[in-house]
Amino acid sequence: MTRKILVLPGDGIGPEITAQASRILAACQARGLDVEVEEALVGGGAYDEYGDPLPAGTLEKARAARAILLGAVGGPKWDRLEDLSKRPEKGLLGLRKSLGLFGNLRPAILYPQLAEASSLKPEVVSGLDIMIVRELTGGIYFGQPRGIEERDGERVGFNTYVYSESEIERIGRVAFEMARKRGKKLCSVDKANVLEVTILWREVMDRLAPEYPDVELSHMYVDNAAMQLVRAPRQFDVIVTGNMFGDILSDAAAMLTGSIGMLPSASLNESGQGMYEPCHGSAPDIAGQNIANPLATILSVAMMLRYSFDEPALAGRIEAAVGKVLDDGLRTADIASEGTRTVSTVEMGDAVLAAF
Amino acid sequence: MTRKILVLPGDGIGPEITAQASRILAACQARGLDVEVEEALVGGGAYDEYGDPLPAGTLEKARAARAILLGAVGGPKWDRLEDLSKRPEKGLLGLRKSLGLFGNLRPAILYPQLAEASSLKPEVVSGLDIMIVRELTGGIYFGQPRGIEERDGERVGFNTYVYSESEIERIGRVAFEMARKRGKKLCSVDKANVLEVTILWREVMDRLAPEYPDVELSHMYVDNAAMQLVRAPRQFDVIVTGNMFGDILSDAAAMLTGSIGMLPSASLNESGQGMYEPCHGSAPDIAGQNIANPLATILSVAMMLRYSFDEPALAGRIEAAVGKVLDDGLRTADIASEGTRTVSTVEMGDAVLAAF
Ligand SMILES: CC(C)[C@H](C(=O)O)[C@@H](O)C(=O)O
Ligand SMILES: CC(C)[C@H](C(=O)O)[C@@H](O)C(=O)O
Repeated sequence: MTRKILVLPGDGIGPEITAQASRILAACQARGLDVEVEEALVGGGAYDEYGDPLPAGTLEKARAARAILLGAVGGPKWDRLEDLSKRPEKGLLGLRKSLGLFGNLRPAILYPQLAEASSLKPEVVSGLDIMIVRELTGGIYFGQPRGIEERDGERVGFNTYVYSESEIERIGRVAFEMARKRGKKLCSVDKANVLEVTILWREVMDRLAPEYPDVELSHMYVDNAAMQLVRAPRQFDVIVTGNMFGDILSDAAAMLTGSIGMLPSASLNESGQGMYEPCHGSAPDIAGQNIANPLATILSVAMMLRYSFDEPALAGRIEAAVGKVLDDGLRTADIASEGTRTVSTVEMGDAVLAAF
Repeated sequence: MTRKILVLPGDGIGPEITAQASRILAACQARGLDVEVEEALVGGGAYDEYGDPLPAGTLEKARAARAILLGAVGGPKWDRLEDLSKRPEKGLLGLRKSLGLFGNLRPAILYPQLAEASSLKPEVVSGLDIMIVRELTGGIYFGQPRGIEERDGERVGFNTYVYSESEIERIGRVAFEMARKRGKKLCSVDKANVLEVTILWREVMDRLAPEYPDVELSHMYVDNAAMQLVRAPRQFDVIVTGNMFGDILSDAAAMLTGSIGMLPSASLNESGQGMYEPCHGSAPDIAGQNIANPLATILSVAMMLRYSFDEPALAGRIEAAVGKVLDDGLRTADIASEGTRTVSTVEMGDAVLAAF
């Protein structure tokens, strides 16, 4: 197995937050983690430099890496690019697709130290711990045909929402296995009362269920799931859903915690290769100000150690260091509250390193 | 203009709640509202009786009516019907499509009397008043091709997300007009960084904007919108979006109020014909127990009077009666809290009638 890690800082706050995560990674190397770390361009920065949000050189390095750490991509600078295939987001989507990173794990965990940051009542969210398993390389994100064309004298835009049985089964197994390791409850989210593609989704999930008799499978329509996440989110353990619904629900779930700046994610393929990134975006409005929260990216390193390098002890140390820093009352601006000390991106990195 | 109202009680709690709304309607007639009221079957009940969730006779009556009052459709009894075209939901979707009810208005209002019912902190939701304008007869709900078929030795499910310029423009105008009558802020929700169909959506909204210089138009990606609804919902005035995103976001927004049992909706076509229904579903688990909340359906009658019969005074009287009953501390079980009196569906109807 290759021991290469590719760091892709990306756009907006990406470079600042990956810089702090890279310091932690270096500290792990100092403690014996045997990996080689490289960097490359992706997203808007890559477009500016090479006219392509996913340059061939970056993709090649990505293929050769065991794990990728991504900051974030995108920003208003590139939002109006006529050619969708050149937008920063296509760099991200291209990486997911090219590497087959179909299994996206998005935890929504409420840190007890940050309970106040949530817009929900404490009794509704305290102890929240949901894992959203989102299919990441199929569905309407990649379905063909797609485009904008002239029909009957006007323009029409169209995309295709499509899943095959094997794609559904593959992500279903990831979710059942995940549920098995956690609270043994899996909720599959679809819109099977309207969309044929999700009728098939539901059918395949039902077919898998007998193979995981220890996991309790339920189904929920996506509109109801959005409601239930707001009403009583602790009813969920693991949620599995397609690419588009997963995009929406995982962001809603993340926001329940009030601290999306804290949430890491992993995207895995069948051979255990993984891309790790914070759940939040590139936040161009605060880029370059040394105020962004690096913790989601630092925690993404922990996820990487756990899932791609089988180093749970080291991962646990990072998580513990983050916990200690929060206990000490240090906060970046996004999670600041009364009685805590607001620190910069770099100071937060310093503090985690010191506690590591 | 025809003065006919068609009441479609539907399934689950539908018959109980429309019964109470019909009493209010009768009281309006007694006060001089010149309308004729009829009833018909739709949904699961219609399927059981005629093998069709939208029988020809019902559709004919619907076409002839100025306004339709719908309870709710669907239930576990019909959830496993192999033929999607026979499911109760198809009765509802068929009505929307046949009558061209493209403009779906879904208010999310926090009743001050029910502030406690929300799972969000009072300081986040007090005074909440959002209007979601959802496109209702296009998008992925109705796009062709759709189905499940065999490809390369396995089954594949697919649906088509499609909008034409004219469809987008039509719903855009409804939303701009609505914003003009309200807080003059319109947020259009799309996923223009990934889906071509929503690139066209965004473009058409931008094109309309100069015609409504008094309205401030903004754009937001759907994942961010789901987050912002949880984080700081009062930033929104009017939201406009397509059928599928509207389904998800309107339910999330409704749940922010903690009392989806209170929220009415209207679905209008180009000639002012309208269908009115509560935002909540058929709640089969509590059907027939005389405990369902009839207020959303009663408030749907108020919306009907306002939008289809231009009777704002009468509509206001109904809304005031509902306010009075809440002030008096009467609550159905779903909105009960300490210090209030829990009443049945019929008792709630009695109380609103008495206050009317
Ligand atoms: C940037 C965008 C293309 C991406 C997505 O929609 O998948 C992001 O929102 C995410 O969830 O990772
Ligand atoms: C019952 C279902 C088909 C319907 C929809 O998805 O539109 C419902 O959820 C709604 O929002 O009115």
